Amino acid sequence: MSTAKFKNIDLNKTRVRLLVGYDGTDFCGWQIQNQGGKPSVQETIEKALAQMLREEVTVVGSGRTDAGVHALSQNLHFDTSREFSPQGRDIDFVRGLGAHLPSTIVVKKAWVAPAEYHSLFSAQQKTYRYLVWNAPVPSVTMGRFTHWIRKPLDVDFLNSCSAHLVGTHDYKSFQTAGTEILSTVRTLTRARWRRLNPQLIEFSVTGTGFLKQMVRNIVGTQLLFMRKNLPPDSMADILAACDRRAAGPTAPPEGLFLAKVVYPEDIENQCRPLYGTSEFDR
Amino acid sequence: MSTAKFKNIDLNKTRVRLLVGYDGTDFCGWQIQNQGGKPSVQETIEKALAQMLREEVTVVGSGRTDAGVHALSQNLHFDTSREFSPQGRDIDFVRGLGAHLPSTIVVKKAWVAPAEYHSLFSAQQKTYRYLVWNAPVPSVTMGRFTHWIRKPLDVDFLNSCSAHLVGTHDYKSFQTAGTEILSTVRTLTRARWRRLNPQLIEFSVTGTGFLKQMVRNIVGTQLLFMRKNLPPDSMADILAACDRRAAGPTAPPEGLFLAKVVYPEDIENQCRPLYGTSEFDR
Repeated sequence: MSTAKFKNIDLNKTRVRLLVGYDGTDFCGWQIQNQGGKPSVQETIEKALAQMLREEVTVVGSGRTDAGVHALSQNLHFDTSREFSPQGRDIDFVRGLGAHLPSTIVVKKAWVAPAEYHSLFSAQQKTYRYLVWNAPVPSVTMGRFTHWIRKPLDVDFLNSCSAHLVGTHDYKSFQTAGTEILSTVRTLTRARWRRLNPQLIEFSVTGTGFLKQMVRNIVGTQLLFMRKNLPPDSMADILAACDRRAAGPTAPPEGLFLAKVVYPEDIENQCRPLYGTSEFDR
Repeated sequence: MSTAKFKNIDLNKTRVRLLVGYDGTDFCGWQIQNQGGKPSVQETIEKALAQMLREEVTVVGSGRTDAGVHALSQNLHFDTSREFSPQGRDIDFVRGLGAHLPSTIVVKKAWVAPAEYHSLFSAQQKTYRYLVWNAPVPSVTMGRFTHWIRKPLDVDFLNSCSAHLVGTHDYKSFQTAGTEILSTVRTLTRARWRRLNPQLIEFSVTGTGFLKQMVRNIVGTQLLFMRKNLPPDSMADILAACDRRAAGPTAPPEGLFLAKVVYPEDIENQCRPLYGTSEFDR
């Protein structure tokens, strides 16, 4: 490999930001595991980038997703020695990278990002969605993307539960052990259930940050409340307990999607599309 | 295996009708192929029935679906020595069979059918749907179930094409070779395109019968007309040619669903649900 192909090879690198979606079914999660078995989303994207850029890069995501969890809008960045033209429209980055990826990972947008953009540390807010297939028989097309519950769910009851979760709280009761962190206090700005169609129910939750398996633990607890007909006000007691054993089981991964990551507007405005953005905004 | 478990073992058999859906991605098609490789939907269902009924049965479907083609509502029947109670609600047939099947095959309904019900020969009408993902980037969740076309499609133009296909015609130009049949004349009662959402377009076609790969050949030809901006009236010339070479390419299987099979009302009325139908009718 000739270094003549690259300008700035030891000088400035270009920070590239990508928006990707994935079907998490066949991955061990976002992060590289080094455990054999299923590949991670991160390593699959790194290998595709290495093939396309002819350069090893390290990809940083907005956060991990567990094995089997999906993403509609995962954000990531990496630094490359490759140089892109100011408009960038001559480089079909999105299509080119897509050709190196399995069909279960979709590249949606690519930008040249400012140096201060960091997929993880710049993130201000995230939204997750959890889909429940609520019907007597499972779905043919949504089986990979929904948690199937046969018994009819009551969206109003579930919303009485989730109302207790909004605000700034210590969410320790909803944190799966295994990660050392300084604080388990987080802020949720929204946590709502809604019926998308007669069989499909969605829980959407937005916050400034999430603990390990927090969304799945919140969903699993609310579904337990539904199943056992527990008083919704007891959700406040579970929060107050600050004890994982006070909450319900972890809902399965297949219903969960990382749906949106919000970054500061001034950073967003400095991201220059590497491929005509208007085409991707419909 | 004790024969004492079965009543009527060599006498009358019970005809059971099933409504099933499947994700065709991982199957070699409906029919048993004996070619190694991927299993067929038919043999997968026959094996599950043998496990559940402890009896070998042969399953007859309303028609074949090709490798990779899906079904929302495939109808099938088989004859069994097992006896079911008149109401049948005590036999959780749908759940029981589902437990023996992979998640890619879904049992939706089960009935005890009258002897004159035949999934293939009693069928009066079928509806197929073909889904096109029409967006600059592929879909994360619909990738297995849509044909991805990047360039924007014009639904009105496509409907000008499909209008020529409705009626009773010789559809030989849209028949893939390989099957010996007496007549290539069929009747289509409906053939319409519609936009389901900004990215998703559906072609729905209803007829009394379909030739080999006829729907995929019709879709592929209409998409060729769109791509090459051919005059919609030329569809009539393609029909008149009665020559496969006059038509366009075969659209890929992943967008195609067998969506509905209609049987005579008097036969439908004689089908007694083996599992509370009301639960499945919402």
